[in-house]
Amino acid sequence: MATSARRAYGFGRADEATHPDSIRATLAEFLSTFVFVFAAEGSILSLDKLYWDHAAHAGTNTPGGLVLVALAHAFALFAAVSAAANVSGGHANPAVTFGALIGGRLSAIRAIYYWIAQLLGAILACLLLRLATNGMRPVGFRLASGVGAVNGLVLEIILTFGLVYVVYSTIIDPKRGSFGVIGPLAIGLIVGANILVGGPFSGASMNPARTFGPALVGWRWDDHWIYWVGPFIGGALAALIYEYMVIPTEPPTQHTHHQPLAPEDY
Amino acid sequence: MATSARRAYGFGRADEATHPDSIRATLAEFLSTFVFVFAAEGSILSLDKLYWDHAAHAGTNTPGGLVLVALAHAFALFAAVSAAANVSGGHANPAVTFGALIGGRLSAIRAIYYWIAQLLGAILACLLLRLATNGMRPVGFRLASGVGAVNGLVLEIILTFGLVYVVYSTIIDPKRGSFGVIGPLAIGLIVGANILVGGPFSGASMNPARTFGPALVGWRWDDHWIYWVGPFIGGALAALIYEYMVIPTEPPTQHTHHQPLAPEDY
Amino acid sequence: MATSARRAYGFGRADEATHPDSIRATLAEFLSTFVFVFAAEGSILSLDKLYWDHAAHAGTNTPGGLVLVALAHAFALFAAVSAAANVSGGHANPAVTFGALIGGRLSAIRAIYYWIAQLLGAILACLLLRLATNGMRPVGFRLASGVGAVNGLVLEIILTFGLVYVVYSTIIDPKRGSFGVIGPLAIGLIVGANILVGGPFSGASMNPARTFGPALVGWRWDDHWIYWVGPFIGGALAALIYEYMVIPTEPPTQHTHHQPLAPEDY
Amino acid sequence: MATSARRAYGFGRADEATHPDSIRATLAEFLSTFVFVFAAEGSILSLDKLYWDHAAHAGTNTPGGLVLVALAHAFALFAAVSAAANVSGGHANPAVTFGALIGGRLSAIRAIYYWIAQLLGAILACLLLRLATNGMRPVGFRLASGVGAVNGLVLEIILTFGLVYVVYSTIIDPKRGSFGVIGPLAIGLIVGANILVGGPFSGASMNPARTFGPALVGWRWDDHWIYWVGPFIGGALAALIYEYMVIPTEPPTQHTHHQPLAPEDY
Repeated sequence: MATSARRAYGFGRADEATHPDSIRATLAEFLSTFVFVFAAEGSILSLDKLYWDHAAHAGTNTPGGLVLVALAHAFALFAAVSAAANVSGGHANPAVTFGALIGGRLSAIRAIYYWIAQLLGAILACLLLRLATNGMRPVGFRLASGVGAVNGLVLEIILTFGLVYVVYSTIIDPKRGSFGVIGPLAIGLIVGANILVGGPFSGASMNPARTFGPALVGWRWDDHWIYWVGPFIGGALAALIYEYMVIPTEPPTQHTHHQPLAPEDY
Repeated sequence: MATSARRAYGFGRADEATHPDSIRATLAEFLSTFVFVFAAEGSILSLDKLYWDHAAHAGTNTPGGLVLVALAHAFALFAAVSAAANVSGGHANPAVTFGALIGGRLSAIRAIYYWIAQLLGAILACLLLRLATNGMRPVGFRLASGVGAVNGLVLEIILTFGLVYVVYSTIIDPKRGSFGVIGPLAIGLIVGANILVGGPFSGASMNPARTFGPALVGWRWDDHWIYWVGPFIGGALAALIYEYMVIPTEPPTQHTHHQPLAPEDY
Repeated sequence: MATSARRAYGFGRADEATHPDSIRATLAEFLSTFVFVFAAEGSILSLDKLYWDHAAHAGTNTPGGLVLVALAHAFALFAAVSAAANVSGGHANPAVTFGALIGGRLSAIRAIYYWIAQLLGAILACLLLRLATNGMRPVGFRLASGVGAVNGLVLEIILTFGLVYVVYSTIIDPKRGSFGVIGPLAIGLIVGANILVGGPFSGASMNPARTFGPALVGWRWDDHWIYWVGPFIGGALAALIYEYMVIPTEPPTQHTHHQPLAPEDY
Repeated sequence: MATSARRAYGFGRADEATHPDSIRATLAEFLSTFVFVFAAEGSILSLDKLYWDHAAHAGTNTPGGLVLVALAHAFALFAAVSAAANVSGGHANPAVTFGALIGGRLSAIRAIYYWIAQLLGAILACLLLRLATNGMRPVGFRLASGVGAVNGLVLEIILTFGLVYVVYSTIIDPKRGSFGVIGPLAIGLIVGANILVGGPFSGASMNPARTFGPALVGWRWDDHWIYWVGPFIGGALAALIYEYMVIPTEPPTQHTHHQPLAPEDY
């Protein structure tokens, strides 16, 4: 299936680079990553502003603060993926693009286009956040105290594994047929849930563009490599397992295609 | 596409003003904006009431309070847009109507009808809130201390840009085919996420009717112009970028129509 | 349209009372109201238990507590309406049933069946809550201090108006075609939003069964009439406005039926 | 209907054990339970980490903490069920599998496969949580102080009854036709609502795999039997009531199949 998908391209790679669909898809990745990162990193600065003005709590690490940040990420990512799903597949995340590349669902040239668009969208979001907040410095991600590099790396691998497993099963899997609400919503909400888990440890980025934008604009590079290596390993693992173990490798027969596993059948 | 959409009106503008569909659509905008603003501004007064009675926290600017307000906006806007989507397009926001007008998706006369209905709905909501809360004065929006006019204006532009980008891509884009749950939900949730970001700075209105109703009924006009200029600029920018860059400008061929970008194709 | 709907009954009222579909629909109303009220009233007792054990805050009226209660209501009502939507229409609320009756979408005999089932479901939920919580007394609804009877009545009327407007536009309106996710979700979330608004004033019941169960089992009847009169007036208002003003009263033509208001058309 | 469903198996039990569809379904149950339990139990440890570092509140039993845990469960379960719904039915819960078995919707051999996969997924999630959190001991479930065994058992029965009633009506009921977003979302959100209710009493597990993984890895077995007996009784009750009372037992006629209860009909 992965092989036939690779063969199914109707145009060569030189054409693809200038094809209107490629340009539109790349633009959609840029816009959706911009909207997502503006809300995601913005929610961190929003929390800082709350505490700056009122000092009601000690730091951002409270249940209310973590719920606030998780909901901002979940809601904005759902909207951003919904907006781009029909045009580009709705990645808004280099690790998702990497998983689709590893699984053979995307050409290398398009993956490079997406990555550039995603990073530029994240950078622009963080620059405009500085302007809108009168110069607040983006925070981004680093490991919490007491969390070692191995711990943080394992956590980012597992959390991104969960995310890309959900992306694969609800959007990329060809048996899904069409883009619906379930893919973008499941993606947004698994990211929200995973932030509620990983927030106090690694921050639960699962997304190199989400990490890179604030790191560059706020110039904070501690532990930065973890937020590239972890998500890429997790995304690749999910893609390989789903592509070669969950999607059937035999040729799709009429039986399995026209009679999907209905409740009566199992 | 925008031009052909303008040409596609089946009736002239004089007819449109008295056409039953126009009247029903205008009524739907009135009702949905009423329901949304009642819940949105009401959630601010609800928070005031909590603190009034208990003084458990200093002011409304706490993570829990901001989550409460963001969820009230997100949930009520989703319901209000869902209710009107099939009848009027489900704007409930003059900036969304302005974006649709700029993109050529709405006639000027209908835009004026919608704006009047939206403002009246917001005013009625705030009047009834005073009655229901035994006279509490609506709060509305103003810039927080430390936030300059340029900062606030930029923030309202960007946040509304994100909102109207989502409206365009999930509801107005003709490739979406039919109104589903994804448009109203993405609209409600991006507004919720953006409030979690902009709440402590500009309040994150993104909606001149949402701002105007409480301003009039509570008679508070500080910084009021920002909440008209910002959302209108942001909405127009999103409409222009989406209309002329993301929606293909070439005539739609059978190829692109019948073979949307499936996962196997990219 | 309402008249033709009344005429469309395929069986008389005597038949209806014993028709398997009526019995199944009544059972579905019983089960869904049970599941909803167990979670809804249970979330109030849950909050009491939290404070009982820890005394971390003074009373339930905090932003975090109100968000907890609103989410429990919203999530459980969405699930309960989803479960029954295909079988009974998914009311789980006597005020919704009253609105459907006023609009001519339901026969009087079926309305009576639904009301009995809804009240019994709510009572059973509160009885089992006492058993499961080792005897905690249900709390139910009463007006907060400083809220007069007129204020509370107006609030319950408006909040229920919003709810039944959403029910009508997303589930009952025949142009919706089929039951989807949008109706149950919009219903659950508008109830959640309205609780965030009305919680500190009237409690925002919008549902006589939700009020009656805890009142009977906890034997608290203060202000009880408000929670019947308010929701019934609000529900009837929404039904009349939607039925006679938003749903077109002219015979549906092919034009309006086959060419619903698409984005290109407005 | 249940009987005909049992007869409808196209292959015998020996075949089923090695049929690719069975293996893929079992794998999907393993993966989805892993993703769910990692986020669910992880959210408990996340809360512990917050308090460990800041000691801002006394223990995890605060409204903000309970909302955090309930959202993590609801969001992750929605994503996990969405991911597996098309492949395995999306149980991720031995009590749901038991309900489907009792209702005749699943063969005994497949139920055993699912149970093993669910338990292994939960165990792996808890082992990796220890690794990612630098050795934090999983917490799992036990009855709160003041909650007797009968109270806790009744609570787990009722909460699981609600869950499996929702599973049955939105996913298993053959009249639902196809897997949509409504089933997974209703399942995730009823679990979230029920946790907001049962959290301070029994923890509201409703899922023996969710309980067993942390119990084994954290080696805590207090009250453990309640979290098997309660969910199995509640799931079986819901299956029997739905299967024999809500789903019509008469042969489906063209009338009921082609004319589902539309709003005009009731």
